Amino acid sequence: MVGSYSLTPDCLAQSYGQRAKECPSPDSQITLVFSQDRPFDLIELEQLLVDVGWSRRPLRRVRKALDNSLLKVGLWRHDPKFPRLVGFARCTGDGVLEATVWDVAVHPLYQGNGLGKELMIYILELLKEMEIKRVTLFADPGVVDFYVGQGWELEPQGNRCCFWYAN
Amino acid sequence: MVGSYSLTPDCLAQSYGQRAKECPSPDSQITLVFSQDRPFDLIELEQLLVDVGWSRRPLRRVRKALDNSLLKVGLWRHDPKFPRLVGFARCTGDGVLEATVWDVAVHPLYQGNGLGKELMIYILELLKEMEIKRVTLFADPGVVDFYVGQGWELEPQGNRCCFWYAN
Repeated sequence: MVGSYSLTPDCLAQSYGQRAKECPSPDSQITLVFSQDRPFDLIELEQLLVDVGWSRRPLRRVRKALDNSLLKVGLWRHDPKFPRLVGFARCTGDGVLEATVWDVAVHPLYQGNGLGKELMIYILELLKEMEIKRVTLFADPGVVDFYVGQGWELEPQGNRCCFWYAN
Repeated sequence: MVGSYSLTPDCLAQSYGQRAKECPSPDSQITLVFSQDRPFDLIELEQLLVDVGWSRRPLRRVRKALDNSLLKVGLWRHDPKFPRLVGFARCTGDGVLEATVWDVAVHPLYQGNGLGKELMIYILELLKEMEIKRVTLFADPGVVDFYVGQGWELEPQGNRCCFWYAN
């Protein structure tokens, strides 16, 4: 068994952008990287979200939504030639006062290893750097424990009632 | 008593931008206008939000939040020289898949006349034109009836759990 394989800073920056960061990997043979800059293949991204169990969306609209998002984070399984997208999350918001996290996904094959938690920690760090204190998200009932376990409050708590509108 | 005073389309566009729209007024002496384009005086805007009962925020951050918002709507009491800001709301979001409404405010002197409802109708129309179906907002407990009465669902309804995080 070899020790955890780490990329050099140069290699990390070249493939994943200056702001990339290695993600703790559950398997010493696998290197995982968070990137805000590596472009997404929209078909690969939509396939990831479909594999997680969500419904397919028109790619044209997904592209525009990504363009208008405050943050987009890919979790990549490193390969020198073909990094594979195994996780994703994005945020919308005004970049100052508030942000909302959307589309948090870890590929089913990579779930159960704490990667979703690492992804959320990474996102919240980025938002903290932007001095954004008010972060919200919407999630399916199946993942309530996941978020509550990480310090998120389930609404309503009596003073921040949350509403949903089907326009 | 004169009939409701209406602006000519030219006058409306000149003072409030091409996309401006008159708001039904509770008083025939008062003309009210929704505008997406008329610039805000940040001090006047913050005073409106403080008058509504919210805490004051640094103007530098407010300016940046406005710049990064998807939509900003002012409700103006028309005056040929000095229109007065009597209502406000803004949205963040990706402009395609989802939007969140923030800072919905009608000046206390103008409350109780259905202007908040008109403001929400106007905002939801704009979002509908952008084909945004998923609209969310957070509100104080005191205005739950206001939103529920207009078709908003209070979360959690069991399938769109809402979370809040103090970062």
